[in-house]
Amino acid sequence: MSDESHEHVVPGSEEELDSEDVAGYDFRGDFDFFDMLSSYETTGFQATHLSEAIELIRAMREEGAEIYLTFTSNIVSSGLRETLAYLAREDLVDVMITTSGSITEDVIKTEKPFKMGEWDVDEAEMREQGINRLGNIFVPSDRYVWLESYLNDFFEDFFAEEKIRTPMEFSRELGETLDDEDSILSNAADNDIPIFCPALTDAEVGNFLYYYRQGYDSDIGIEIVDDYDSLIEQGLLADKTGLIVLGGGVPKHHAIMTNLFRGGADYAVYVSTGMEGDGSLSGAPPHEAVSWGKIKQEAKNYVQVEAEATLVVPMLVAGGFKVE
Amino acid sequence: MSDESHEHVVPGSEEELDSEDVAGYDFRGDFDFFDMLSSYETTGFQATHLSEAIELIRAMREEGAEIYLTFTSNIVSSGLRETLAYLAREDLVDVMITTSGSITEDVIKTEKPFKMGEWDVDEAEMREQGINRLGNIFVPSDRYVWLESYLNDFFEDFFAEEKIRTPMEFSRELGETLDDEDSILSNAADNDIPIFCPALTDAEVGNFLYYYRQGYDSDIGIEIVDDYDSLIEQGLLADKTGLIVLGGGVPKHHAIMTNLFRGGADYAVYVSTGMEGDGSLSGAPPHEAVSWGKIKQEAKNYVQVEAEATLVVPMLVAGGFKVE
Amino acid sequence: MSDESHEHVVPGSEEELDSEDVAGYDFRGDFDFFDMLSSYETTGFQATHLSEAIELIRAMREEGAEIYLTFTSNIVSSGLRETLAYLAREDLVDVMITTSGSITEDVIKTEKPFKMGEWDVDEAEMREQGINRLGNIFVPSDRYVWLESYLNDFFEDFFAEEKIRTPMEFSRELGETLDDEDSILSNAADNDIPIFCPALTDAEVGNFLYYYRQGYDSDIGIEIVDDYDSLIEQGLLADKTGLIVLGGGVPKHHAIMTNLFRGGADYAVYVSTGMEGDGSLSGAPPHEAVSWGKIKQEAKNYVQVEAEATLVVPMLVAGGFKVE
Amino acid sequence: MSDESHEHVVPGSEEELDSEDVAGYDFRGDFDFFDMLSSYETTGFQATHLSEAIELIRAMREEGAEIYLTFTSNIVSSGLRETLAYLAREDLVDVMITTSGSITEDVIKTEKPFKMGEWDVDEAEMREQGINRLGNIFVPSDRYVWLESYLNDFFEDFFAEEKIRTPMEFSRELGETLDDEDSILSNAADNDIPIFCPALTDAEVGNFLYYYRQGYDSDIGIEIVDDYDSLIEQGLLADKTGLIVLGGGVPKHHAIMTNLFRGGADYAVYVSTGMEGDGSLSGAPPHEAVSWGKIKQEAKNYVQVEAEATLVVPMLVAGGFKVE
Ligand SMILES: NC(=O)c1ccc[n+]([C@@H]2O[C@H](COP(=O)([O-])OP(=O)(O)OC[C@H]3O[C@@H](n4cnc5c(N)ncnc54)[C@H](O)[C@@H]3O)[C@@H](O)[C@H]2O)c1
Ligand SMILES: NC(=O)c1ccc[n+]([C@@H]2O[C@H](COP(=O)([O-])OP(=O)(O)OC[C@H]3O[C@@H](n4cnc5c(N)ncnc54)[C@H](O)[C@@H]3O)[C@@H](O)[C@H]2O)c1
Repeated sequence: MSDESHEHVVPGSEEELDSEDVAGYDFRGDFDFFDMLSSYETTGFQATHLSEAIELIRAMREEGAEIYLTFTSNIVSSGLRETLAYLAREDLVDVMITTSGSITEDVIKTEKPFKMGEWDVDEAEMREQGINRLGNIFVPSDRYVWLESYLNDFFEDFFAEEKIRTPMEFSRELGETLDDEDSILSNAADNDIPIFCPALTDAEVGNFLYYYRQGYDSDIGIEIVDDYDSLIEQGLLADKTGLIVLGGGVPKHHAIMTNLFRGGADYAVYVSTGMEGDGSLSGAPPHEAVSWGKIKQEAKNYVQVEAEATLVVPMLVAGGFKVE
Repeated sequence: MSDESHEHVVPGSEEELDSEDVAGYDFRGDFDFFDMLSSYETTGFQATHLSEAIELIRAMREEGAEIYLTFTSNIVSSGLRETLAYLAREDLVDVMITTSGSITEDVIKTEKPFKMGEWDVDEAEMREQGINRLGNIFVPSDRYVWLESYLNDFFEDFFAEEKIRTPMEFSRELGETLDDEDSILSNAADNDIPIFCPALTDAEVGNFLYYYRQGYDSDIGIEIVDDYDSLIEQGLLADKTGLIVLGGGVPKHHAIMTNLFRGGADYAVYVSTGMEGDGSLSGAPPHEAVSWGKIKQEAKNYVQVEAEATLVVPMLVAGGFKVE
Repeated sequence: MSDESHEHVVPGSEEELDSEDVAGYDFRGDFDFFDMLSSYETTGFQATHLSEAIELIRAMREEGAEIYLTFTSNIVSSGLRETLAYLAREDLVDVMITTSGSITEDVIKTEKPFKMGEWDVDEAEMREQGINRLGNIFVPSDRYVWLESYLNDFFEDFFAEEKIRTPMEFSRELGETLDDEDSILSNAADNDIPIFCPALTDAEVGNFLYYYRQGYDSDIGIEIVDDYDSLIEQGLLADKTGLIVLGGGVPKHHAIMTNLFRGGADYAVYVSTGMEGDGSLSGAPPHEAVSWGKIKQEAKNYVQVEAEATLVVPMLVAGGFKVE
Repeated sequence: MSDESHEHVVPGSEEELDSEDVAGYDFRGDFDFFDMLSSYETTGFQATHLSEAIELIRAMREEGAEIYLTFTSNIVSSGLRETLAYLAREDLVDVMITTSGSITEDVIKTEKPFKMGEWDVDEAEMREQGINRLGNIFVPSDRYVWLESYLNDFFEDFFAEEKIRTPMEFSRELGETLDDEDSILSNAADNDIPIFCPALTDAEVGNFLYYYRQGYDSDIGIEIVDDYDSLIEQGLLADKTGLIVLGGGVPKHHAIMTNLFRGGADYAVYVSTGMEGDGSLSGAPPHEAVSWGKIKQEAKNYVQVEAEATLVVPMLVAGGFKVE
């Protein structure tokens, strides 16, 4: 019995594998960030995924792929706003897709900063004081007072041309009014990077449109099919496409769904905290999108980094875009 | 030293707490589901949250609160579709907010079922065979062939009245064409339960609108501010409101943001797999919404059940709606 | 171009799949729990996993497999203690493997209950008052004062026989001193179900052993290799084995590692919140254990339910053990 | 009505907060890693936690705190082994606590590397070929054949002195046999850093002890209370203590529980993927430990970074230990 059990416990193996050895960063000597990042390739688990993600971004850029960057609103609430603004400023991405809070908050930050805060507070007291909490970030309500007045002025011009406009027009024309080198909208407008945002009403923009319609002009509206057509066609014209998907939700699906028209994206990098087992779109790993034809299946053209974005996006950008 | 350490290790405590004892279900005798559900109150961790969620739904109903039900698309992909259709059929909720995939998939299911599948498959082969995967659910592509033709017919009628329509009109009029007692859209249309869906383009609806505009009528469009106004006003007119939020994303935020106009929702039940620490809207627990004024702060008027929805929603509905 | 895109978007599919239709519980008519549980099979996502888990437990029982139940300490902190005590009382499982907190807390609960509490409290104030928090469960410190005196008496008898004892002996002999029909230890002792707990020191047991050695007898000790041998041999003698793994950690690995000696477990059901992507043992899904030979690979002999245990274990037990 | 609603929607706020502005890394100019790391402080979400963790490690070091490093086995499977070996080699930590797989794998790696692999493989085929999978890391079984023979030789010497030994002695004496500058055990032995591992049987060590006892000497054993006493006393003697907790499980609890004897750890840094809502010890955030007296409550003496360790530990070490 023991002999048979021993066979089970220590079966042995014959051929040596020819993949790389698992090995981490060597902390001897002076610390070098890019060496550390290279060592992630053979560190295993998510470090390896981060390293693969960087490789894929480099490949997208080498092949001149049309790069889609999608992001959720809280990315802009955080200090990643400045990182994304850099990508827009240097014209390193070609399409942006996001949700409405991103637009609101990028505009506010051109005028007044968000403030560092705490997760664990007396929420009712916060409400009393007019401080809105977003994780460990605080947004005093006077930001929204300012934003309402800024947007009211903008609405007047924006809807003067036409009563029914689109979210892409909205973000572009709003971006044109801004003068801030760290603004995503402003830089995107300057470099003709379209920003798609189908659910434009789902943030303060929607709230202020509500009041604006009540007070000034009840005929104005936001139409969303036009933008969807543009996004599809942008993809159809591209030779190659690459997706950088930060978080999930509508922006992620918008990117992969419209890439379906061209037979799938050529590259995809996801950074997400989503959970595959809930069957959600946000949690779906890139290979699920292959069955739908939304991402192409090739040797190694997609990867997901399971991580909270603030931890890894600066490294991803440093490794994928900053180094030549 | 040892004495001092002992003080640290076994400090003692004086008064006895007057909360309930932790105690689980007693499996002696015949099994009784509702007794088991009651025992969840004192089982601790998420079981207690589920029990609190049921209590809150009962409270919403007793007080005649306007009930908002929000859900992500994958909820409709799953067998929870029939549970939500029950809520609509019995007129147990007042407002529904969702994303576009829900609409697409509810319509398909009136004609052809989704099929049970596997998580772990050869995705490229699936694509070859025209089978789309969504977690452990398979959707053969002929469903979409059928859907396109069904929607094309519908579009003709829908846009005949007016060129620019809204998502709420879309789901209501589409629901009216359906004849299926297990359809969410059909029952909602019958009982005048509005279905909000701002990002209507972000699913096959959008794809088929694209082709329809190319082939038939390029002037049609979907306008989203009108619906947002209706949703706000629905909340302003309500005496009390209660939210049942399944999953996160745009539907969740749409519900809490529009409740801000009335000074916050009176009750909120979240079921979510989201993670608080990523600062996302989807992961934000109900108390974060208190600082924003989106949920009122009262003794015990909100709870989050951290769970994948298919496991708990049938129990939530059985406990909250089925028992008198 | 449009035609080619259309091919991508609506590729069609030929053969119909022969798996079951996705369909949820039918809430029409009187509510029936076991019907609801059956409907989970075709509800998708984790509901389907729960249904598969129940099927596997039934199969284990039909084939007379030796059933290993592993659980983390917090399971015993919660009301699941009574559920596990039921399994021991009715002799429905054959081996238990756990961590040290389980033993401590099961003993305390024979004398004094744990109390329902809150997650969100002033922790320093709690410390002041001698109330220990464990999620939303409170444990007043007087429980540990009582426990120390109870264990001190027990240690005297336990180490009287021999100075060096094992964790399995510890839990058995301690269980024999207890008189509580809802105690896991007491019922396990009555029914000769061994309880393995290699890291016995890692809870209050260890703390009180420390003081006991200082005050009474510095020669006593806990030896762990003997138990490991017994656990291996228990597996070698079994015709078939089935694992029910609640949570991860040492208990989970102890079960799968010792099953390696017999060429793998025949069945495995995991209930876990663990995350695969961190490469942890706790997060590793059952199929990873196949590569190690710790679980056998057959048609459908393992499944993981991604869920917090308090939500699903009562259903698992009701479906797997309670019904004939 | 509208006016009242407006008050709700845009309540305003009076005083400006005096915390720092949220602001991310400025990608203009040359990239500087330590500047990027500094910017994490004001990036929000988990980036801020990482930055706080680095500050706490610096504080631990400045105050000469006794540093406890705890880690799960998969940390050693990954390339973080070399990072931890650096901490041992440079004598930067004072106590290590881990689980048995860490010891096994550190020894193997002194002789043969682990290999990079894939998550998604044919597990039964892997078993056939004798390749064990651990996330995206492969371990060919010949490693265990070698290990058995290495350990058998070692056992002979180790148990020659005495029949009953402890895990701490085991890791120290085993470490002394190793000659590898990247070995945790070897460096720890050289620098007298004790390695605690109560559940020593729960890995291949246990398996080979089983065979060794069968074949050579059935009287040998591993006793665990002695080590627990040493660990407690190490804490009692320390002026200040600081914990660096990578992952959860027994090592994490061992560290905080023994710090209870001294009235709590002075500093704690957790890196974890655990989920608070499951009530687990692994998922419990540092503040839960305050109620138990396991961590002291001071202004800002603990933080948890919610992240998979391979992504952040190299940065933590670079920021906390490498820079002066
Ligand atoms: N079936 C589909 O999922 C599907 C189909 C077509 C289009 N889409 C589109 O994809 C976009 C994104 O989808 P979405 O916004 O509906 O949500 P989503 O799937 O992205 O989920 C959002 C969040 O909700 C939570 N969640 C989701 N499923 C859950 C579950 N089963 N249990 C508990 N929590 C859960 C998770 O935290 C998740 O991150 C939408 O525009 C949608 O129309 C989805
Ligand atoms: N009540 C306590 O938790 C307690 C008390 C005293 C001592 N301890 C000690 O702490 C150490 C670590 O605890 P552990 O090893 O028992 O496990 P753990 O609490 O660290 O959990 C291990 C893993 O199991 C999974 N898990 C835990 N609870 C779950 C749940 N409710 N539902 C689903 N999955 C769940 C999670 O993935 C978790 O990471 C042990 O030595 C134990 O004795 C714990």
